[in-house]
Amino acid sequence: MKQRVGQYLMDAIYQAGADRVFGVPGDFNLAFLDDIVAHEHLQWVGNTNELNASYAADGYARLKGVSALVTTFGVGELSAVNGIAGSYAERVPVIAITGAPTRAVEQAKKYVHHSLGEGTFDDYQKMFSHITTAQGYITPENATTEIPRLINASLQERRPVHIHLPIDVAMTEIEVTEPFKLQNPKQHDVSEYIKLIQQKLQSASNPVIIAGHEINSFHLHDALEQLVNQTNIPVAQLSLGKGAFNEENPHYLGIFDGKFAEDNVRDYVNNSDAILNIGAKLTDSATGGFSYDFDIEDVVMINHHNFKLGDTQNNEVSLPDMLHGLLEMDYHNKGTYSSYVRPKAHSYTLSDEPLTQETYFNMIQDFLQPDDVLLAEQGTSFFGAYDLALYKNVDFIGQPLWGSIGYTLPATIGSQMADTTRRNILLIGDGSLQLTVQGLSTMIRNQLKPIIFVINNDGYTVERLIHGMKAPYNDIHMWDYKALPAVFGGDNVAIHDVHTSNDLKRTFDEINAESDVMHYVEVTMAAEDAPEKLANIAEAFASQNK
Amino acid sequence: MKQRVGQYLMDAIYQAGADRVFGVPGDFNLAFLDDIVAHEHLQWVGNTNELNASYAADGYARLKGVSALVTTFGVGELSAVNGIAGSYAERVPVIAITGAPTRAVEQAKKYVHHSLGEGTFDDYQKMFSHITTAQGYITPENATTEIPRLINASLQERRPVHIHLPIDVAMTEIEVTEPFKLQNPKQHDVSEYIKLIQQKLQSASNPVIIAGHEINSFHLHDALEQLVNQTNIPVAQLSLGKGAFNEENPHYLGIFDGKFAEDNVRDYVNNSDAILNIGAKLTDSATGGFSYDFDIEDVVMINHHNFKLGDTQNNEVSLPDMLHGLLEMDYHNKGTYSSYVRPKAHSYTLSDEPLTQETYFNMIQDFLQPDDVLLAEQGTSFFGAYDLALYKNVDFIGQPLWGSIGYTLPATIGSQMADTTRRNILLIGDGSLQLTVQGLSTMIRNQLKPIIFVINNDGYTVERLIHGMKAPYNDIHMWDYKALPAVFGGDNVAIHDVHTSNDLKRTFDEINAESDVMHYVEVTMAAEDAPEKLANIAEAFASQNK
Repeated sequence: MKQRVGQYLMDAIYQAGADRVFGVPGDFNLAFLDDIVAHEHLQWVGNTNELNASYAADGYARLKGVSALVTTFGVGELSAVNGIAGSYAERVPVIAITGAPTRAVEQAKKYVHHSLGEGTFDDYQKMFSHITTAQGYITPENATTEIPRLINASLQERRPVHIHLPIDVAMTEIEVTEPFKLQNPKQHDVSEYIKLIQQKLQSASNPVIIAGHEINSFHLHDALEQLVNQTNIPVAQLSLGKGAFNEENPHYLGIFDGKFAEDNVRDYVNNSDAILNIGAKLTDSATGGFSYDFDIEDVVMINHHNFKLGDTQNNEVSLPDMLHGLLEMDYHNKGTYSSYVRPKAHSYTLSDEPLTQETYFNMIQDFLQPDDVLLAEQGTSFFGAYDLALYKNVDFIGQPLWGSIGYTLPATIGSQMADTTRRNILLIGDGSLQLTVQGLSTMIRNQLKPIIFVINNDGYTVERLIHGMKAPYNDIHMWDYKALPAVFGGDNVAIHDVHTSNDLKRTFDEINAESDVMHYVEVTMAAEDAPEKLANIAEAFASQNK
Repeated sequence: MKQRVGQYLMDAIYQAGADRVFGVPGDFNLAFLDDIVAHEHLQWVGNTNELNASYAADGYARLKGVSALVTTFGVGELSAVNGIAGSYAERVPVIAITGAPTRAVEQAKKYVHHSLGEGTFDDYQKMFSHITTAQGYITPENATTEIPRLINASLQERRPVHIHLPIDVAMTEIEVTEPFKLQNPKQHDVSEYIKLIQQKLQSASNPVIIAGHEINSFHLHDALEQLVNQTNIPVAQLSLGKGAFNEENPHYLGIFDGKFAEDNVRDYVNNSDAILNIGAKLTDSATGGFSYDFDIEDVVMINHHNFKLGDTQNNEVSLPDMLHGLLEMDYHNKGTYSSYVRPKAHSYTLSDEPLTQETYFNMIQDFLQPDDVLLAEQGTSFFGAYDLALYKNVDFIGQPLWGSIGYTLPATIGSQMADTTRRNILLIGDGSLQLTVQGLSTMIRNQLKPIIFVINNDGYTVERLIHGMKAPYNDIHMWDYKALPAVFGGDNVAIHDVHTSNDLKRTFDEINAESDVMHYVEVTMAAEDAPEKLANIAEAFASQNK
């Protein structure tokens, strides 16, 4: 079959699981965009800038398992670097495609726009090599081998890849003898490691699993839950990876965030004699600034390409290999532990007093429903939200390792597009919203209907708590937040104004009564009020910086 | 004298010529920001995101000769990459400072937020090595040598540098024995090259100087004009570098943009038997897609670190060295040429018909005044504006080599802050504005009063002309542009709505009558209308992509 390289690439993207392509046009990708908009299964999603497009692609990939981003050479791809680095850090498979100058222009070392004007064309590819798991320069000759290599690498590593696609190559017709197929990853024999784990468990009296974000990246929720149900090992989750484990399961202990965890979770984990770290990363923000009491050397590390138990180590075996191996293990924990106690409903009193962060999150808890997608922006929103109790099928999106403020607004474009029928709830603050606010326009343009709560507390509260409570650099300029949707062309967005718990209750009722529009809620709270967990972590970060 | 490293760095920045510091706070730079806000000569300018901050720093440096940008590790610095790369390409000296985790955290390879979570801390420094002229990791021991090395490198190369500053280092007190001093660049003996140039000129009958952006970067306007007045060699300017030569000087020929140039300019340059390329770069966008008729091998290249005349080449000599050498040359051109003919005033008829691009730019011509700063966004605005006749002291800011849309709005923050008494005029379009719109908030917050013309023509017109006139990917979402300043807190911005030349004339009158507020003008024009030069270059770009 004859196809243009661009068509072959888009077929492969679709086969890999994506049906939207995010990006921004530029003259080195325009002709290729024709093949995207003409593709019968793909929809082009034009974004207002490339950083937002990369965040949207990340949000989409977290739910769909893969996404594609198309930008132009230099100015476009470099604007997306921060988003792609976040996808790399948190293991999200984004196929980043750069439409580039023709091979003839490159070979002639021409001084073309979007180059550095020095006749070199590989500078940006080299920059991307630090934040992508694989990189490739596509030619008509290598297209049917390089494109599958790169897409499969992205899916197997759950990390972004970079594809440099000269525009003449995209337009070249090639003979495609077989359509793109997903490759099964190489499987490793893990039986010897499983045996070691089993021995460790058998000699333990209070084992525990710490589950984290790689479970979400590899969509291994069912396997993990099956393992836990089989073995009776309780599970603590990190905030970096919330959603990894079904919080309704009786084997769930709660969130482990070091010394800030609930007493029973903290004590159980710290005193465990067999900690299995499954797909989790013990980062500063996830562990209250490394405030755990166990010896990290005693932890059984079961991460993607990183198995370690005592002196035994293997950097080849995959997380899926290990998890499926564990399911074959013959072990049943006889110990006991106290399950997670879900917060009580209506643990607040409605009033016309100024709303506090504590009441706000207690009320959000009651607002959550099964099957929601909950996005929480790094800062006040995330540190308030990660202690919320989720229902089994709720997806939770945060970015506590990378921690780029502004991420979740465009990420909601992607997560909502991954399934437009699910209720997406975004919790964000004013400081973060300002970075990527034009993402609202893309939501409105695409008739997306998320529910957006914007905390207006007049500044970077997370930074205030770390350093400089009253410092001018933590102030932001006051916007008319409620007017934003209308400015961005949203004539059918329901706007809500919340200052008190009574306001918030009424807003919830209105949202529940009208599900077919975007809801946009401005929640005004005091500048120095914060969720307890945020104050705690801020203190840990401040002392880490000394 | 005892100083914290951060204080020493800020003193050096001030000595180098900057009195504002642009950036966004983050927990790895907060304590250092205290030393910025406390500095008696420096003002901190908090931006809404890092890309905008980098553009603002670029705009400021173009006029002030240097600027400083402070971001946080990872998420911050990587969001600024596109802006810094643009400064590198177009030779603008921006000191990019990253507040980073402490040395202790790095040495322990801790999994901290904003890292890639792999225990490595040098990934971003490596990325910046491709787009900065020098990089350094500051310690208390090397601060008084590395900081001068980096700042001097930036000033001597007129390119950005990257400073990695662990937050504990910034806070460490050191003994400063001598304050920072600007280093004089190493001077090279260029007499042998000047002799060669003189010989070439003496055997020529119609010599010409092509002047470009490096004249602006090195602020060599006076030296160039003196050379031209002495030698009677006429000057053609590239659009990449407009402002390099005084357009009121009788030796000025006009803009040379290859086959699109005015007949007399094109013919004179193409037929010249001695072309001196001084600080200019013959890029695609500056030359109508390389449509010049001379042999590039015959051109005398006098660029920074790139002198070439026939087989003689030197990559050490600086542009200032060469230009000052040329001033010593004994040569006077006997040839004749026709000077630039300034466009006639009032070359349009006022009406209530829809405004056209042609009339728009003719009217802008009449609106310009001596000492204005004119910024023109890549796209319709730049390709319409670069043929405008400037007065001697007008600064012109565009970005035709890097060509990152959205650049000029935040660049205006910087250019206006470089001198708040000058009238800054920004010409931009809707598609570009959407990328960096929150820059308006920073202008308003800082009580800046530029005059902003936003062309609303419903999409990416420059892309439409290159490829896909009616393609959906070149459409953008319609915003209520006139409502933007109010949303961003601008309660004292004069808003103007222009559909016809009569509207525009009235708006000019209103602007001239009230100079003490920001003026924001929405100019509605047809989607497919474009300046002639834009249509021409779009055709050249389209054919370059085949």
